[in-house]
Amino acid sequence: MKTLAVLHASQLVTLAGPARPRTGVELSELSIIPDGAMLVRDGVIVVKGVSDVIKREMPGDAEVVDATGRVILPGFVDAHTHPVFAGNRVDEFELRAKGATYEEIAASGGGIRSTVRRTGAASEDELLAQAMKHARWFLEGGTTTVEAKSGYGLTVEDELKILRVIRRLNAETSLEFVPTFLGAHAIPDEFRNAPGQYVALVIHKMLPSVVEEQLAESCDIFCERGYFDIADSEKILRAAQESGLRLRMHVDQLTNSGGAFLAARLRAATADHLEQANAAEIAALAEAGVQPVLLPGSVYALGKSRYPRAREMIEAGLAVVIATDFNPGSSPTPSMQMVMSLAATQMKMTPAECVSAATINAAYSLNRGDKIGSLEAGKLGNFTLFHCADYREIAYWFGAPQTHSVYIRGERAYCA
Amino acid sequence: MKTLAVLHASQLVTLAGPARPRTGVELSELSIIPDGAMLVRDGVIVVKGVSDVIKREMPGDAEVVDATGRVILPGFVDAHTHPVFAGNRVDEFELRAKGATYEEIAASGGGIRSTVRRTGAASEDELLAQAMKHARWFLEGGTTTVEAKSGYGLTVEDELKILRVIRRLNAETSLEFVPTFLGAHAIPDEFRNAPGQYVALVIHKMLPSVVEEQLAESCDIFCERGYFDIADSEKILRAAQESGLRLRMHVDQLTNSGGAFLAARLRAATADHLEQANAAEIAALAEAGVQPVLLPGSVYALGKSRYPRAREMIEAGLAVVIATDFNPGSSPTPSMQMVMSLAATQMKMTPAECVSAATINAAYSLNRGDKIGSLEAGKLGNFTLFHCADYREIAYWFGAPQTHSVYIRGERAYCA
Repeated sequence: MKTLAVLHASQLVTLAGPARPRTGVELSELSIIPDGAMLVRDGVIVVKGVSDVIKREMPGDAEVVDATGRVILPGFVDAHTHPVFAGNRVDEFELRAKGATYEEIAASGGGIRSTVRRTGAASEDELLAQAMKHARWFLEGGTTTVEAKSGYGLTVEDELKILRVIRRLNAETSLEFVPTFLGAHAIPDEFRNAPGQYVALVIHKMLPSVVEEQLAESCDIFCERGYFDIADSEKILRAAQESGLRLRMHVDQLTNSGGAFLAARLRAATADHLEQANAAEIAALAEAGVQPVLLPGSVYALGKSRYPRAREMIEAGLAVVIATDFNPGSSPTPSMQMVMSLAATQMKMTPAECVSAATINAAYSLNRGDKIGSLEAGKLGNFTLFHCADYREIAYWFGAPQTHSVYIRGERAYCA
Repeated sequence: MKTLAVLHASQLVTLAGPARPRTGVELSELSIIPDGAMLVRDGVIVVKGVSDVIKREMPGDAEVVDATGRVILPGFVDAHTHPVFAGNRVDEFELRAKGATYEEIAASGGGIRSTVRRTGAASEDELLAQAMKHARWFLEGGTTTVEAKSGYGLTVEDELKILRVIRRLNAETSLEFVPTFLGAHAIPDEFRNAPGQYVALVIHKMLPSVVEEQLAESCDIFCERGYFDIADSEKILRAAQESGLRLRMHVDQLTNSGGAFLAARLRAATADHLEQANAAEIAALAEAGVQPVLLPGSVYALGKSRYPRAREMIEAGLAVVIATDFNPGSSPTPSMQMVMSLAATQMKMTPAECVSAATINAAYSLNRGDKIGSLEAGKLGNFTLFHCADYREIAYWFGAPQTHSVYIRGERAYCA
């Protein structure tokens, strides 16, 4: 395979550094190389450095990418998405603009369960076709790795159907999708009066099938009032852990239900959302080494004002991750650039912290810190060129298309 | 010139209706034609209607645009922007993420005056080159008409330089730029101790030159504590009015300084910002028929939480306009789609109200209600196709590129 030589990036933002997630990131920790270059062979980064030095090592037949005037970042790692669903929830979007709350809409039969009804009625091929459009959006935004949850099935058959679509996305796109089983996303209508039976179904039917078909790396749960309480969440998650799955959890989004403490107790990989988490929850996550995944897109889209306390988390030593939470209800955005804008303007994360949270920290949260998330020799050649010369511009200009081109394993996957 | 036939739009959102700006827009007032079509000749819309009917009137040699599966809206009219400046203010963006306020940054020599220093040092050609990039962004977002203010010059020579760049943007792009003179954007450093002398300079030197060269249609002012007070604002605006310019005003953004009342007294075309305006100000604007131009991008980007009271304004019968406020300090977004998202999620405007505020109402605020802002026979063929089948999706998905293609005077100006 030919060598790809990427030359003269105004800033090659490598994030090279210690093999661990980062907290309270200073500019120096981004390890930016001005006039930066790298060589990529067989999909893997061989070397990176200043262009004049790298050029000397460049084979004569290398394919050259001139990145003059452009920033290069590691491909974004979007660590929390729900990309496989049918239809949209634009009706509920309009209802919220007219004053209804997310909770009111859910209580009247809308919300997650309305997407479940449509997703159940859709075929695997139909779901794949729509998800391919979402995959294109991720790519256009500069994302190269996508954590992808099931959760709009809520039956054995439909949860497996969604996870198989995620497997097909992996095969049919250049993006890497990292699958998570989220059978416990909501209590389906037919179990409203017997939630324990649904918990048993998740544990005894869904989970073994998911594990048998190797359809997921992690298990997730929506731990929230009206969804799954602490006791049921713990049952499901312990069963998942015993089956060899890692844990990710939706906690403390709409109410504080003690989910962060459960995440700490179970040593989950991540505790996601955390809008209602306070100092005690933050301390517990820090103590247990759980990574918080913050999802400001959902706070914004629901018109709420309480964002998770990113600064306190960073000060407590947590390795914060930011992600889109892409889904049709509470966060209809596929854009990590938009999430960085939200993190900077609404959560007061610095541009350097935003980059780290969207790349290297997210990679570690997905157990891939050794392969992606930074631009270093031995890691995958996953990177994005932007139409700007300063990495801070990516979060600064918002709503403006700034992606120039995206490379995955050294191959061009998208060009604007 | 050939006829352009646009056929089979899933929704042709025409906004056809009475020849006046709209308030409290209901869905029916968008006058949506399903399977919609229109014919455009010599840059002007000839007829619109259901595709089957329009096809019968279509000349055999018409150039056909197949809009199957796509929404078509009138081109966005962005009624408040500052598109001509040098550099950016990404340093201040980072300072704000670290906790500094916009006001603190301005007090320490940053803010508008930092852009003034750089813009003063740039040549007309340099400014044009950068503004062409901004123009491209507007177009990519589906905007076809852009109100454009000077205001980063603050000397006779540099204000004229900026207005000449705006004139050149009109000549060198397909967008229409509507120029506004904003010499009173800030007090330049050299007049800090003698603001009255700067007011005199604006009135007696800048304004006559601007009028002489016919470089602006309107005059604007930043009426705000630390910028221009009510008395000085009134002097400048009355002089502008006497010179034949229409009035637009920045009022009640950071503090409530009575600017809305002045706008009402002077019967300004628009009162812009209004974050701090209350019921009395809203009533005064309604009484005087002044259109509010709301700029949620700046509230968002500054990390503030007080958005203008759009619902109260609509209920008071005001014909609300929304705009980007595109500028390097407080609102670095060129995207009307993003502004519609902000208006729906943060200001509780319905998707129908957002569309109306971004098109027909904005057109009237620029004295162009008879030419643009809706898709009706006799109006310009300015329209945008989107990658979605329901107009509400444009504000619903955010950070996702949804523009398919843009037409100005019947010519394709952009295609994704």
